[in-house]
Amino acid sequence: MRDELKLESIRSNLIRQEETIIFSMIERAQFRQNLLIYKPGGISIPGYSGNFMSFLLFETEHIHARVRRYTAPDEHPFSKDLPSPYLTPMKYDWPIKKTDININDRVLSLYINEFVPLICKQGDDGNYGSSAVCDVNILQALSKRIHYGKFVAESKFIKDEETYKTLIRSNNREKILELLTDMKIEDQVLNRVEIKASAYGQDPLSKLPHFKINPSVIKDIYLRWIIPLTKEVEVLYLMERISAN
Amino acid sequence: MRDELKLESIRSNLIRQEETIIFSMIERAQFRQNLLIYKPGGISIPGYSGNFMSFLLFETEHIHARVRRYTAPDEHPFSKDLPSPYLTPMKYDWPIKKTDININDRVLSLYINEFVPLICKQGDDGNYGSSAVCDVNILQALSKRIHYGKFVAESKFIKDEETYKTLIRSNNREKILELLTDMKIEDQVLNRVEIKASAYGQDPLSKLPHFKINPSVIKDIYLRWIIPLTKEVEVLYLMERISAN
Repeated sequence: MRDELKLESIRSNLIRQEETIIFSMIERAQFRQNLLIYKPGGISIPGYSGNFMSFLLFETEHIHARVRRYTAPDEHPFSKDLPSPYLTPMKYDWPIKKTDININDRVLSLYINEFVPLICKQGDDGNYGSSAVCDVNILQALSKRIHYGKFVAESKFIKDEETYKTLIRSNNREKILELLTDMKIEDQVLNRVEIKASAYGQDPLSKLPHFKINPSVIKDIYLRWIIPLTKEVEVLYLMERISAN
Repeated sequence: MRDELKLESIRSNLIRQEETIIFSMIERAQFRQNLLIYKPGGISIPGYSGNFMSFLLFETEHIHARVRRYTAPDEHPFSKDLPSPYLTPMKYDWPIKKTDININDRVLSLYINEFVPLICKQGDDGNYGSSAVCDVNILQALSKRIHYGKFVAESKFIKDEETYKTLIRSNNREKILELLTDMKIEDQVLNRVEIKASAYGQDPLSKLPHFKINPSVIKDIYLRWIIPLTKEVEVLYLMERISAN
């Protein structure tokens, strides 16, 4: 089996991504919710009718597309119709099957409607640009984590091809989800995330524990959304796995 | 005195910026030095002769300029000739005097030549885009921190106008630097940065202390560059302070 498909290697990659997600959320938490940046037309941008944060997200992805970000197997944009890279695409030997699976529309909407109110204090402090820059960092980290489900699914699939093929052919999504689920590992993830959020989200010099984000909030975001969405990507991927080239 | 010029408020702002700097350096440390991204033409981009990372930096600043980042008194771009904002500039009531002081050319060159070799392991892992995205985040954080010297200087100036005016008029930079220096506070900064780098840069679940970046490296970067450059901005600002409008 290729190294990047070994479950151990995938897990250490996902563990490393936890830092990125937690750090970026702590960064965002220093600002208020600033809901104006998520309101279409809330901050008016000539020729653009969406919200301010999405404008920054799409513009950022535009540049990143130019420097080849979305040719990598573990990167998925939020934008449609991105320009082609200035650079010759890297000759990736794709470890997973190529599919069009991309659930970032839902990630974006969940982020704005559910995560921001959990991460940030209510109110408006006028730090629109800084808040939106943090949002873009978090969204890119979430997208990577959740779509990493493709790697997880491929790894599990090739270890038990026959069972998965039978279930895929009979369209038994429920049973596939069951087979993909490892409760022990999920508990480990949740505990680890909470411990990390406590370690990173706390002023190491303060005597009283004062958290920039309550660690249980980050754990909860993993429990309610990040883990389930990753598994959803796993199921979607497997359903396309046989026909995909 | 305006709130944002109270030394206490400036210090708490600088303390908060430490997290951003440390988190972003830890993020960068996951990748190798990837020196190709700093080499002019190392990765060829049509119509651009500079290095890959600077390309990403300038393109990112281009977007941020459009959304008004560089109209804020605490933001300074690395790029020249940025476009004007799409948005009406915010009506900032500038707490400091407007000057053209911007030492980001030196920050950029120091970052590439000194910081990257200290932060990252030698070698090339092909993660060019990811490394450059981290670089941009670090550079923006460094620029903000170092140019915050303008706020520090203004705060100290208005508390002892006569002394500073005399020194400025006699062009006594050495004495100004001495007056601006508070060794006790600098020691506190260095200790705090080292403690934070230990807390954030360590896997909280690992039994053996294993640092993503050696905390003494981050302390050293503060000692050798970040603090001296901040003070240099303070002196530059004061030299322009009297004539500036």
